[in-house]
Amino acid sequence: MNKHTVTFYPDNKKVEVESATTILSAAISAHIHLNSACGGDGVCGRCKVIVKSGTVHSEPSGKVTSEERKRGVYLACQALVESDIEVEIPLESRLDMGSLSKEELESRLRNVYTKAEDISEAKPSLGEGLFTHAPLVVKFCLELPKPNFDDKISDLERVYRAIEEKIGERPIQTGLSNIRHLGELLRASDWKITVAVSQRGPVAEILSIQPGDACGRNYGLAFDIGTTTISGQLVDLDKKEILGTKAAYNRQASFGSDVISRIIYSKAQDGLEKLQNAVVDVINEMAEEFSEEHGIDLNDVTVVNVAGNTTMIHLLLRVDPTYIRQEPYVPTANYFPHFKAAEAGIKINPHGLLFCVSGVASYVGGDITAGVVACGVHESKELSLLIDIGTNGEIALGSREWIISCAASAGPAFEGSGMSCGLRATRGAIQEVRIEPKSLEVKYATLGDDKPRGICGSGYIDLVCELLKHGIMDKSGKLNRDIKNRRLREGKADYEFVVAFEEESGIDGDIVVTDSDLDNLKRAKAAVYSGIAILVRHMGTGLDQIKRIFIAGGFGTSLDIESAVSIGLIPDLPREKYIFVGNSSLAGSRQALLSCQASAICDKVAADITYFELSTDPEYMDEYMAALFFPHTDAKRFPSVKYV
Amino acid sequence: MNKHTVTFYPDNKKVEVESATTILSAAISAHIHLNSACGGDGVCGRCKVIVKSGTVHSEPSGKVTSEERKRGVYLACQALVESDIEVEIPLESRLDMGSLSKEELESRLRNVYTKAEDISEAKPSLGEGLFTHAPLVVKFCLELPKPNFDDKISDLERVYRAIEEKIGERPIQTGLSNIRHLGELLRASDWKITVAVSQRGPVAEILSIQPGDACGRNYGLAFDIGTTTISGQLVDLDKKEILGTKAAYNRQASFGSDVISRIIYSKAQDGLEKLQNAVVDVINEMAEEFSEEHGIDLNDVTVVNVAGNTTMIHLLLRVDPTYIRQEPYVPTANYFPHFKAAEAGIKINPHGLLFCVSGVASYVGGDITAGVVACGVHESKELSLLIDIGTNGEIALGSREWIISCAASAGPAFEGSGMSCGLRATRGAIQEVRIEPKSLEVKYATLGDDKPRGICGSGYIDLVCELLKHGIMDKSGKLNRDIKNRRLREGKADYEFVVAFEEESGIDGDIVVTDSDLDNLKRAKAAVYSGIAILVRHMGTGLDQIKRIFIAGGFGTSLDIESAVSIGLIPDLPREKYIFVGNSSLAGSRQALLSCQASAICDKVAADITYFELSTDPEYMDEYMAALFFPHTDAKRFPSVKYV
Repeated sequence: MNKHTVTFYPDNKKVEVESATTILSAAISAHIHLNSACGGDGVCGRCKVIVKSGTVHSEPSGKVTSEERKRGVYLACQALVESDIEVEIPLESRLDMGSLSKEELESRLRNVYTKAEDISEAKPSLGEGLFTHAPLVVKFCLELPKPNFDDKISDLERVYRAIEEKIGERPIQTGLSNIRHLGELLRASDWKITVAVSQRGPVAEILSIQPGDACGRNYGLAFDIGTTTISGQLVDLDKKEILGTKAAYNRQASFGSDVISRIIYSKAQDGLEKLQNAVVDVINEMAEEFSEEHGIDLNDVTVVNVAGNTTMIHLLLRVDPTYIRQEPYVPTANYFPHFKAAEAGIKINPHGLLFCVSGVASYVGGDITAGVVACGVHESKELSLLIDIGTNGEIALGSREWIISCAASAGPAFEGSGMSCGLRATRGAIQEVRIEPKSLEVKYATLGDDKPRGICGSGYIDLVCELLKHGIMDKSGKLNRDIKNRRLREGKADYEFVVAFEEESGIDGDIVVTDSDLDNLKRAKAAVYSGIAILVRHMGTGLDQIKRIFIAGGFGTSLDIESAVSIGLIPDLPREKYIFVGNSSLAGSRQALLSCQASAICDKVAADITYFELSTDPEYMDEYMAALFFPHTDAKRFPSVKYV
Repeated sequence: MNKHTVTFYPDNKKVEVESATTILSAAISAHIHLNSACGGDGVCGRCKVIVKSGTVHSEPSGKVTSEERKRGVYLACQALVESDIEVEIPLESRLDMGSLSKEELESRLRNVYTKAEDISEAKPSLGEGLFTHAPLVVKFCLELPKPNFDDKISDLERVYRAIEEKIGERPIQTGLSNIRHLGELLRASDWKITVAVSQRGPVAEILSIQPGDACGRNYGLAFDIGTTTISGQLVDLDKKEILGTKAAYNRQASFGSDVISRIIYSKAQDGLEKLQNAVVDVINEMAEEFSEEHGIDLNDVTVVNVAGNTTMIHLLLRVDPTYIRQEPYVPTANYFPHFKAAEAGIKINPHGLLFCVSGVASYVGGDITAGVVACGVHESKELSLLIDIGTNGEIALGSREWIISCAASAGPAFEGSGMSCGLRATRGAIQEVRIEPKSLEVKYATLGDDKPRGICGSGYIDLVCELLKHGIMDKSGKLNRDIKNRRLREGKADYEFVVAFEEESGIDGDIVVTDSDLDNLKRAKAAVYSGIAILVRHMGTGLDQIKRIFIAGGFGTSLDIESAVSIGLIPDLPREKYIFVGNSSLAGSRQALLSCQASAICDKVAADITYFELSTDPEYMDEYMAALFFPHTDAKRFPSVKYV
């Protein structure tokens, strides 16, 4: 087989590949991550690249115009390398959060609880208590009596005896490599050591034995593994302090934008391995960065706690996810026993443990459990609602008496996927929109104050709200053909509204929203709203009985609540009932890391939450159909919403 | 560095080594195992080889005569390879039990309990009960109800639920690789599976999940890791049946014949790794052979239980043994938690477990615990004595009320090591000796009925007894210079008695016993006897109160009890009190494999046994000195012994 060299610009990275490899595969080999919402099927048109020199073979694609073709534009997933080539990757094809500044990142995560105290502050407002501080791994210093002829129990027994005196439990497991040089370690450290011990149920395990007093160095990592974004925190387990927070794209996006396309991709040759590597690489890079930035030895990180939807956890562990999407939607596990982090390829202390927050059922995973626990829904006397809008829209309704949850297939529209000019909440994404009443001139704000490259979820919600308000779109989601304005026109495929013209944009072309985009958004908001409505109706409770509504999700951090109600995404309830909690999954994951009690509560809550299967509920389709209108076919449900 | 090829005959094995490598190292690389009692120090003279061609460099050695040197004889451990060479390995230098026929092996192991029933038979004679049959790993078939919308718990939870119904415990650990393709496995097997579950204290763990009904295939391996010999059994855990028994030399012998020299060797470059590999290789080869001979898939072997002295267990696990031999003689561990067998390099089911029978203290290891439990000493109403004579002489005295134990450094004389013509109990070893009264002609029996190559332990005991009986040796162990006979003469180094002349022997030279050998034997028997005497005296009990004496050890299988009493090795008690139990360590290891109860009892017994430190006991030296006489300085202790 012939080999060819592919050079990527502006990275200036080279990789050698076999003839007829796709440019997308070559990019993955070069550790360059491209947008690829459809998983490489040539359908989404997100992975455009410009071939500067050399020969590639590609069938014509409707996603590439003849003009683009002339400029050397190809879909990376369809173009087969036939010689040494040079490829340029335009900014909009890049899957990269690294380009965001620290401030921008922080602003994006501004509603994430950033300190343990924030949880404390949040909880009393619900009139409830806090979790005991008892991290999944404790580290303490032991000064052992030296052996003599009257006290000559073995070295390990001496350590066990001291631990039992300290925590009241005899360890029953210890990694062999901790034992191998124990004799020397004890004597060299003059019998003063620091042990890291995990306790889960009846199983206490020694994870590490260090010489001297190493008590101040007890770290853990909490993660939220989202379909689109992975967020992580480095936590000082003793001080309950968040030392750092990071977010990065889930590189699995190269294999498809939603859980369904990834489950399908997992059946491809080495698909499951590739999906696992994509997420584990991100985790390891974050851990590595945390380690460097905070001068922390990764051997002092002995525990990782992860929350994520059912599919994400399966893929992280390389567990076959096939049966999640086959009736009756049974995952391999909702509760996973803990594993060695190394078993999943996570590079912390080699004896370090990996815990996964237990999921509920089907697609409702540990991210919802963690969110429910972080928001205190499970211990609230009054009725609460948690709405987590990511690639799926998950909803939990309940109180300390009962909790019911469901997963609505909102689709990735709110994450900018499958839209003609959609973009994730990344640099250049339009996130706020206002339209001038008469002129229909558009004012927008972009993430990073960059030239606009596309529209992200909160931008679409603002946009839909404004289009409605000014009668540019009717309540069924169709653009008004009667208005004469340069922004309204028949586009290539569809009638469209121009949000930003080419001259002001950061891409080659206008940024538009089409009838078909609006239809996508309508379906997505209908899925979420009807999920909420069905749960409320199913439980025989009124919407007005809900005392508090938590809006969660990476999406939710910049959501305009008024717009969201106006388009009918969320119920028309007093605005003060809404609380933005940001990434509640990450907050819950961190809580469980810091408290065995919280971790055990997560397991219990996950087992107690009732899962409601929308897809087999006869009333759901009716609710959904009724919600396919802005804000709703039944206007009485949105009394406060008045369009001009 | 120059490379040279070393060719070994008669094996015709070639190996390439760097210049100045010893022939011993080259042999190890070629997987040829030579005698090397001193650990390669050039002291024992066991590793003689004949260099047929090529150049080696070696300092002159007292162990190689000038005549031998002319024939190309070198000590393999001292000879450095300087060119391509050809080396012949004489039979007597070879560490190889493979040459014994199956029948010979069986006869050597004839006193090893070979069937589970033998334990049953043995126990009632002690008036005690048996252990419950509850193997360390149980395997059972589950027919799971298929999931549907009314019963849609996850796949793993479905398995857990069924196991909990079956054994009353919810598993809390499961290897990740058992989970990864569980969904497919359950559906492909139509929800009928076989699980292997281990339970130890509160920890139940799923070791394997197989499709369909695989119940009949539940195997374990029991091992006794002796300093000299490794014995193993393949056990059908469900049927309580021993499918096969094997014994092989412990290849660590290449690094020293006793535990002390091996502990010293462990400090050498890669010493600990080499020692571990030497024992693990033997275990893996035995497992492989069992698998082939019995048509068993090693994936169906999910547990290994090992008994051995403290040093052997440390080396098996590659745990630094340094501190066992430093005051106050504290090992790294007597009780080891269980590990994955794979952590120690043992190749069974990748999730299979390795259990070690708990040791007592210092040099008294799990082999004695296993022996005590196998013989029922711990549950006997009456006083019992267990004497396990291997490279060390370990003694346990007690009943259900208390047990005390000690380790007497008998040294390797009874295993033929450090003797001028000593040989382990292998082909050609003289194992029985009778001397004609007048002519002093010697009749002997060898193992394998081969030409004699040396004398093994039981042969030496017979020989000493006969020498005493006929006045050829006095009671202090000195050969009688007054007897004129061709067999008695001044040898090269010492006065000696010829047991077999060169013309009848299988080696180049006469087989003799020297004054110095007899002194060695006297010290060895004195160490064992005085250990027994001290324990009895320390406990304030009389020898006559001992109701049963178990003689154990590879050595004990062919021991003439009358001879052993006559030379003062064991007390002069009614012969019917003596019971040969053969390899009681292996028997106990197997019992623990077959019964969680027995395994737990081993842990408890090990913790309960009092360890008596001989080396610091002021009376021990007196006892020992008094025993340096045949049978003893105090003849009243051996009333039944009358020498002619």
